[in-house]
Amino acid sequence: MVNIAVMGYGTVGSGVVEVINTNGDIINQRAGNEINIKYVLDLRDFPDDPIQEKIVHDVDVIINDPEIKIVVEVMGGIEPAYTFTKRCLEAGKSVVTSNKALVAKHGAELLSIARDRELNYLFEASVGGGIPIIRALNSCLTADKIEEITGILNGTTNYMLSKMFYEGADYDEVLKEAQDNGYAERNPEADVEGYDACRKIAILSSLISGQQVDFEDIYTEGITKITKQDMMYAKKLGMTIKLLASSKRHGDHLHAIVAPAMISKEHPLYNINDVFNAVFVHGNMLGDAMFYGSGAGKLPTASAVVADVVDEAKHLKRNIMTMWKNEKLTLLPIEDTCKKFFVRISGDADSRREEVENVFGPVTVVTADGLNGEFGIVTDVMSEGEYKEKSAQIDGILHMIRIEEQQAED
Amino acid sequence: MVNIAVMGYGTVGSGVVEVINTNGDIINQRAGNEINIKYVLDLRDFPDDPIQEKIVHDVDVIINDPEIKIVVEVMGGIEPAYTFTKRCLEAGKSVVTSNKALVAKHGAELLSIARDRELNYLFEASVGGGIPIIRALNSCLTADKIEEITGILNGTTNYMLSKMFYEGADYDEVLKEAQDNGYAERNPEADVEGYDACRKIAILSSLISGQQVDFEDIYTEGITKITKQDMMYAKKLGMTIKLLASSKRHGDHLHAIVAPAMISKEHPLYNINDVFNAVFVHGNMLGDAMFYGSGAGKLPTASAVVADVVDEAKHLKRNIMTMWKNEKLTLLPIEDTCKKFFVRISGDADSRREEVENVFGPVTVVTADGLNGEFGIVTDVMSEGEYKEKSAQIDGILHMIRIEEQQAED
Repeated sequence: MVNIAVMGYGTVGSGVVEVINTNGDIINQRAGNEINIKYVLDLRDFPDDPIQEKIVHDVDVIINDPEIKIVVEVMGGIEPAYTFTKRCLEAGKSVVTSNKALVAKHGAELLSIARDRELNYLFEASVGGGIPIIRALNSCLTADKIEEITGILNGTTNYMLSKMFYEGADYDEVLKEAQDNGYAERNPEADVEGYDACRKIAILSSLISGQQVDFEDIYTEGITKITKQDMMYAKKLGMTIKLLASSKRHGDHLHAIVAPAMISKEHPLYNINDVFNAVFVHGNMLGDAMFYGSGAGKLPTASAVVADVVDEAKHLKRNIMTMWKNEKLTLLPIEDTCKKFFVRISGDADSRREEVENVFGPVTVVTADGLNGEFGIVTDVMSEGEYKEKSAQIDGILHMIRIEEQQAED
Repeated sequence: MVNIAVMGYGTVGSGVVEVINTNGDIINQRAGNEINIKYVLDLRDFPDDPIQEKIVHDVDVIINDPEIKIVVEVMGGIEPAYTFTKRCLEAGKSVVTSNKALVAKHGAELLSIARDRELNYLFEASVGGGIPIIRALNSCLTADKIEEITGILNGTTNYMLSKMFYEGADYDEVLKEAQDNGYAERNPEADVEGYDACRKIAILSSLISGQQVDFEDIYTEGITKITKQDMMYAKKLGMTIKLLASSKRHGDHLHAIVAPAMISKEHPLYNINDVFNAVFVHGNMLGDAMFYGSGAGKLPTASAVVADVVDEAKHLKRNIMTMWKNEKLTLLPIEDTCKKFFVRISGDADSRREEVENVFGPVTVVTADGLNGEFGIVTDVMSEGEYKEKSAQIDGILHMIRIEEQQAED
């Protein structure tokens, strides 16, 4: 029997209990051992829930119990999760987490503590909910140099953008609807400003580079400025707009960005709708691959947490290698990265085209029915720095959205 | 250093050598050890290839060399691959294979020999080429009861059906084109009759049930009877036709089938085109997930093989658990499985509708422009047995194609 403790009895924590209760038989078979929840740490009591008999309020009960081999941290936030996790590892317990904020901030350190003690610190559920992308990178695509990883990593914003695309709704409407449905929080900032996706791509970037990528270094732009007019242009171009979190290799460098982007029908992420997440990966041997699933939600997330518990139960006293050193990786400056740009400009296309092309070079002009007094252009590939400099020379730029094209095959 | 031998220097075998030569640094880092190819077994010589110095013609050289810890079997076919694999395992060497025919036929036995000796027999590349579906089932989705697994597992037929759908081409044309492009073999039977997909779904069915599923027991229908007329009806219904290999849980039973099926735009497999493969999975906790990538090709397949080598190098003398017992699983008879059916019937819809509905109950009638003297119907859900009995009462049935709907959420 492997005794475990769950820290935090919120949505994910209660999901973990439910998954283990529902699928206990097959989970135990796969773990090669019976997984037993001995304690659940929460400040609250749950008098009407059978879990009450396992509830403890003091983390020391868990840390001081030598029977506890695995601790599930599903509290969220940096503190006290960070201190508790560190103390658990130092006490010889492996830890599983769904806490993306903590992993993005202190992942390298916690992994190194685990490695030094032949323990494990696993965090599959921190990115992409039920999509096994972390294990894919660590254990599956091990023969490849990962050249690109681009994901739709936030379900709330993907739900909103899908609604805007398919129903022609505007940002404020869909945000309200998402909040009413419980898909967006009352304070939606972490989702709509891209902060959540940024932490997730920081984790994935660290895993593919093997070095620490600080989320503060990643250029991050949310979806708050995306309008139904933008979607009209996207449709006209045979494209849609998605909030993409992306990390690409350029030689020894990595370029990471979170921003709304236009993608065409041919892109594997085009059809990822509603609250679903997906991660596109390009390996130098594998070519293109994509992983798709529920990026959030109680049971999918808990399923990923419990899969990590199974892995740790199979590897008690044996570190599963993870390449993520503390050494910091300097990202390629955004100014040096190249792409096409979609730009909305006020005025009349016919009369302004020459002026615009004098600055940007040849562009494709696009107009959308019912949108007067403005037009759209698609530039040729140029660096962000070049775009910045050139766009400053043009009056009446209303909005710019980057165009994401799949990298050419090597 | 971990010494390995590669048996077979064909497409995949030379790909394995290329992957290890190209990505050696990161592969060794991930394996925690240097992977060294000591021998390559082939009947031929390759005088102009640097591999020649490693070529051996006698399998005993490999089997009798105690330095060889891992053997890569990429010969294909049942014999001599089966005998060689068994002898390697009995001599204490772990084995990696891409050989779906051998795994489908003797997987349970070879796994049990490996387990008894604390060795590993891994076969990621046998299903879905570079898509890590086997490892996803064995190591990632371990907290779930897998309720359904449905895949596009054959790139050749998917390429052909994509061409038929998007270009309105007919079967013979696209087969010829696929053969000219090297996507289909001169004798295309294994692909177009569904035999290849059948072996792959047999392997996946064994993995999700933990018991032996014999491929001979799986109802298998190829794409040879699919016409451009069928595609016209599919388009009219907002659907497409894919060769699906599927395994679904019904209580304690499993229903497995390989057959062309109509799927709607909402199905995650709808957009999987050309030679790409994809596997849709529904877990009782996870919900829906999908894995997408190159199902074949030298480097994607070799990438999966080498990822298995890395895993075995990390687990020398330690069996990685796989639930696949020798005990045979009896599949649910196809007659008892239920679905909707699309049926093409000769004659005029208006005059025959009553007769048809007297037999099938209410149906949806569908006609396609330019197709005279026939019409299509979509029945309500019924069992295959019921369909068989009812359709025998109607004259002039031209073709039947099953309709695949996603299972309702539990």
